[in-house]
Amino acid sequence: MKFEVLILGNSSATPMFERHPTAQIINFNEQIFLIDCGEGTQMQLHRYGVKSNKISHIFISHLHGDHYLGLVGLLSSMNLHGRFSDLHLYGPEPLIDIINIQLKYSETYLQYNLIFHPTNTNEEEFIFQNNTISVKSFPLKHRVPTTGFRFDEAPRNASIIRERIVNMNIPTVFLQQLKRGVDCVDIDGTVYKASELTKPAPPSRSYAYCSDTRAFESYLSSVQNVDLIYHESTFLHEMVDRAIETFHSTSLEAAQVAKQVGAKKLLLGHYSARYRDLSPLLAEAKLEFDNTELSLEGNWYNV
Amino acid sequence: MKFEVLILGNSSATPMFERHPTAQIINFNEQIFLIDCGEGTQMQLHRYGVKSNKISHIFISHLHGDHYLGLVGLLSSMNLHGRFSDLHLYGPEPLIDIINIQLKYSETYLQYNLIFHPTNTNEEEFIFQNNTISVKSFPLKHRVPTTGFRFDEAPRNASIIRERIVNMNIPTVFLQQLKRGVDCVDIDGTVYKASELTKPAPPSRSYAYCSDTRAFESYLSSVQNVDLIYHESTFLHEMVDRAIETFHSTSLEAAQVAKQVGAKKLLLGHYSARYRDLSPLLAEAKLEFDNTELSLEGNWYNV
Repeated sequence: MKFEVLILGNSSATPMFERHPTAQIINFNEQIFLIDCGEGTQMQLHRYGVKSNKISHIFISHLHGDHYLGLVGLLSSMNLHGRFSDLHLYGPEPLIDIINIQLKYSETYLQYNLIFHPTNTNEEEFIFQNNTISVKSFPLKHRVPTTGFRFDEAPRNASIIRERIVNMNIPTVFLQQLKRGVDCVDIDGTVYKASELTKPAPPSRSYAYCSDTRAFESYLSSVQNVDLIYHESTFLHEMVDRAIETFHSTSLEAAQVAKQVGAKKLLLGHYSARYRDLSPLLAEAKLEFDNTELSLEGNWYNV
Repeated sequence: MKFEVLILGNSSATPMFERHPTAQIINFNEQIFLIDCGEGTQMQLHRYGVKSNKISHIFISHLHGDHYLGLVGLLSSMNLHGRFSDLHLYGPEPLIDIINIQLKYSETYLQYNLIFHPTNTNEEEFIFQNNTISVKSFPLKHRVPTTGFRFDEAPRNASIIRERIVNMNIPTVFLQQLKRGVDCVDIDGTVYKASELTKPAPPSRSYAYCSDTRAFESYLSSVQNVDLIYHESTFLHEMVDRAIETFHSTSLEAAQVAKQVGAKKLLLGHYSARYRDLSPLLAEAKLEFDNTELSLEGNWYNV
């Protein structure tokens, strides 16, 4: 089952070196989620072949322009491209006022439902759940109210070991129960044991998005044991004073977070416009946490 | 004296085929003006080597997103890039509320003066003038209040014919008077005739920007005899019904406007996303007005 992240933008504050402001797509088994929506996101979606009308949920971390200025353009284009299906939008409360004033003066009447869910920027909260995935938001430490997002795959069923059931004529209705670990008995008294006929489900996967933020202990509990953590790394640690002042993190700090929470892998991003070459950011993080990768635009990363 | 237009975006409504939403730069003798500011304008400025902090005046035609959604990002980036010089912004009155709500929630405090001048969307009005150029806005016919802009070079002085004044020892103070057409007499009684020693100034040049609009007689008087007119041509004339419905123009209509107002040259733009190949739009306009060119992104056009 697919669980991947596509980077559409990884630049902080101002776009530079062909790097765009923050936006990323989560493809979870063809459910398409968008996290943040910096200026130019609709063009980036087009460039990387993502149909914007497949996006069902948009999550906005905070109201700095480099994280949401592409939103009104995207919402309008969805409308022009004939969207009718509901769109769920999550973000800090004033976001809806910012959108509404712009729709009002452009006299844009969306023909689809835009369902806004204000995020709680003070406490962790489950914000979305279906039978395959759940999403929670949690407060980050930034200059303005900001949340991160954590995506957790729902526990999956065990899978039937096909070789073991050949010629068994197991009633089809039993298969679903066996996958859930329930033993079954048919009318002849034959017992079908889940432990013998199935192999356990792989562990559920999880992805956490932490941008923008100072590396800080307050949100560590929210991102414990994630498989993949995207953590902003705006600066090299030699600029930690600037990171503190602007409520951002250094590459080293991102790596320390990944290590402390027991993440399997770290993806760096939100690079300052001062760095053309990103390899020093990677090298610095790897000293602390080896399984680190630079997020690069247009690349898909497996969770 | 330079008077050129750089096209940063020529797409209507939704960006397509690597065409961006509307924005263009006027370089008048190194005074840099921006007309409209669609999403991605700051990236386009960077791509084409225009330093955004050199922009002194921004003119926004109307509040459809494809004409202004890049503005807040640009204003914020100017701030981050250390702008301190005044920036004059012209546009429909609600534009300033749209900007302010976004600056407020992003807690952005501009360190330069943003001086907003609401445009009069009902009547033609001079909105800017210095000793080299003047700008007026005039109402267009669109779904929402919209203005075009006309840039008129101030009358220039005649120029001295250098060959004729060699060995004349004309007092330097006379040269400026001669350039303005005033004859001079020195203390010896020698007469210096402007008509003999100067050649007339070239005619003042003018540029008009008409987007978005139905081709309509109401604004023809505002764009009489311009050297270069940029007129939107969203559709081919076979789609004139759609043009009427959406308050846009066809290529043929743009050409008719150029002809009626006695323009020297027509620049087409604001192309619908349905046209990958723009040559039919050009061919259609040329049937009516031969000196027509397609506006293409990244190209500079002389006025």
